[in-house]
Amino acid sequence: MGNPVEVIQSVKLDDENSTLILLDQTVLPNETVFLELKEMEDVWDAIYQLKVRGAPAIGIAAGYGVYLGTKKSTADTYEELYSDFLKVKEYLASSRPTAVNLFWALNRMDNRFKKEVGKSVPEVKAALKEEAELIRAEDEKICESIGQYALSLLEPGWGILTHCNAGTIATAKYGTALAPIYLGQEKGYDFKVYADETRPLLQGARLTAWELQQAGVDVTLICDNMASIVMKEGKIQAVLVGCDRVAENGDTANKIGTSGVAILAKHYNIPFYVCAPLSTVDLECKTGDDIHIELRQSEEITSKWYEKPMAPKEVKTYNPCFDVTDHSLITGIITENGIAYAPFNESLPKMFKSTK
Amino acid sequence: MGNPVEVIQSVKLDDENSTLILLDQTVLPNETVFLELKEMEDVWDAIYQLKVRGAPAIGIAAGYGVYLGTKKSTADTYEELYSDFLKVKEYLASSRPTAVNLFWALNRMDNRFKKEVGKSVPEVKAALKEEAELIRAEDEKICESIGQYALSLLEPGWGILTHCNAGTIATAKYGTALAPIYLGQEKGYDFKVYADETRPLLQGARLTAWELQQAGVDVTLICDNMASIVMKEGKIQAVLVGCDRVAENGDTANKIGTSGVAILAKHYNIPFYVCAPLSTVDLECKTGDDIHIELRQSEEITSKWYEKPMAPKEVKTYNPCFDVTDHSLITGIITENGIAYAPFNESLPKMFKSTK
Repeated sequence: MGNPVEVIQSVKLDDENSTLILLDQTVLPNETVFLELKEMEDVWDAIYQLKVRGAPAIGIAAGYGVYLGTKKSTADTYEELYSDFLKVKEYLASSRPTAVNLFWALNRMDNRFKKEVGKSVPEVKAALKEEAELIRAEDEKICESIGQYALSLLEPGWGILTHCNAGTIATAKYGTALAPIYLGQEKGYDFKVYADETRPLLQGARLTAWELQQAGVDVTLICDNMASIVMKEGKIQAVLVGCDRVAENGDTANKIGTSGVAILAKHYNIPFYVCAPLSTVDLECKTGDDIHIELRQSEEITSKWYEKPMAPKEVKTYNPCFDVTDHSLITGIITENGIAYAPFNESLPKMFKSTK
Repeated sequence: MGNPVEVIQSVKLDDENSTLILLDQTVLPNETVFLELKEMEDVWDAIYQLKVRGAPAIGIAAGYGVYLGTKKSTADTYEELYSDFLKVKEYLASSRPTAVNLFWALNRMDNRFKKEVGKSVPEVKAALKEEAELIRAEDEKICESIGQYALSLLEPGWGILTHCNAGTIATAKYGTALAPIYLGQEKGYDFKVYADETRPLLQGARLTAWELQQAGVDVTLICDNMASIVMKEGKIQAVLVGCDRVAENGDTANKIGTSGVAILAKHYNIPFYVCAPLSTVDLECKTGDDIHIELRQSEEITSKWYEKPMAPKEVKTYNPCFDVTDHSLITGIITENGIAYAPFNESLPKMFKSTK
């Protein structure tokens, strides 16, 4: 059943050639360029220039960057190597100081280094490679698990709406919200995916439509304001979205527009699922009211991407980057350890205790 | 109270100079150009090139075009003049064969011509001018009346969301959905207007934001997918939209995305009003199911306005031009003869019988 599906891996190591192979997301969808990064300076630049985006993908790139940078060290002892390692770590940390996953990955590499105390230089270098590969492999496993749980909720032939990009190129592989699409594609589920273009940064048009098209998925691009009509016309049987942060009560921060899609889904009686790695579930955050919404520049709305500005000069804009979807609008929150249903403040903590 | 407000008139006659003064909407918002059209060929071109848009504005331009074209005739008799008139009429009819208001205006000018049978050439020319001015004046009166009724529903300081452009530049003056904004502005109501940018053609960003800014109204431009968050944050007290066609049961076809805004408004318990000249209320059309939705080209979503395409090549799109808002989502339909409330199939027919 089904056809073999080539799901893009946007960050991977070619160790034989001491090279990090990285998909340049800044030139999508017009060009498909896989960069071959050999120097830590190249990795720094790729993170800084947003050539790699998506929290997990940034973490993976950083892990590999640490390995490649440290591998070049000519140190003879563990201590000398650690000194070189710290320079690499500090350098890469400066590439995108606001990216939480960057620091998480760098610290994880540091902890692994410390664990190898007393080992030879080649042994430590091998351990760093192993740790970087582990970061990637664990993320892939999380995505695959989310995908399997999500797939259990879907039926072949369904129309599925998604917003923004929670796809393979933002993670090790599969993505979160798009994972069940790829896993279903491998099983011949023949989903019809509708991708919101996701203004103002167009992640749906530039990234989601592109990566699904590459994998041979039946994808249709729509403007954000067309979600209502495709639901009304019976084209959508489920909505799947990713998330940036989930509060203990299930309130979910995700790309601007997500809450509107959830309200439409409820109106049309369509299930609305959030795909959330447990790393995004923050039990310390009690409700969505505790989530700060970043406001971004006017220019993203008025002139970015355009040949010339499409709004009058000096017009006021309001450009929140995220919105919070109320837990009452969410049918289920799909984690790598299972699916949480309301009341979420009871079901979500249990996910952390689950073992698969 | 309030300040004098300069509400733009986008189509007007300068008879002394035999000139139609027309705002070129194709170069907004980057340039404000008032064209001076002296020849009927110029008027034809302006309609053809969409320099004038909005059903009422097209009708008004056509009426003036007929007058200017016929005025140049050197005919000596009523019959000779009518022969020249018919050439002008036929010529202008070819400018935009799908524009209903164009034909409505041309036929109205024709009927007026026939009424003047037996009159002298100068008398008939004067009658044509009078009729063209009447078309404009009646539209302005309709808009003003809609604006007054709508204003009675609003309170000073309110936040008002609108979608697409149902403004002064699409009509003789004031617009429909924007009429109460201008009338309120004159009274110092200090509305805070939020304009959806309205993808893919960006009428909200290019036109609504522009014309409100010109009149000194406090306007904030947002992406379509931000309507939910501004409602949630308490910034919106009413939604006002125009319409293309209203069915007998109140189902309303309007620019794509309108139905989504209506669902959000209902969710957040915000009143949702449709501003509808009776010329758009079609009692022969029983429900929204009878309204055909035009599908438009992919390119409008994938590449229009952009420096380079923002979606992958050959990606499928779905690009409906309109959607139908269910009558159950509409708080009131505001006509020039009063405000219709549910059940609309009882209240709307009464609007046609009303006299003010």
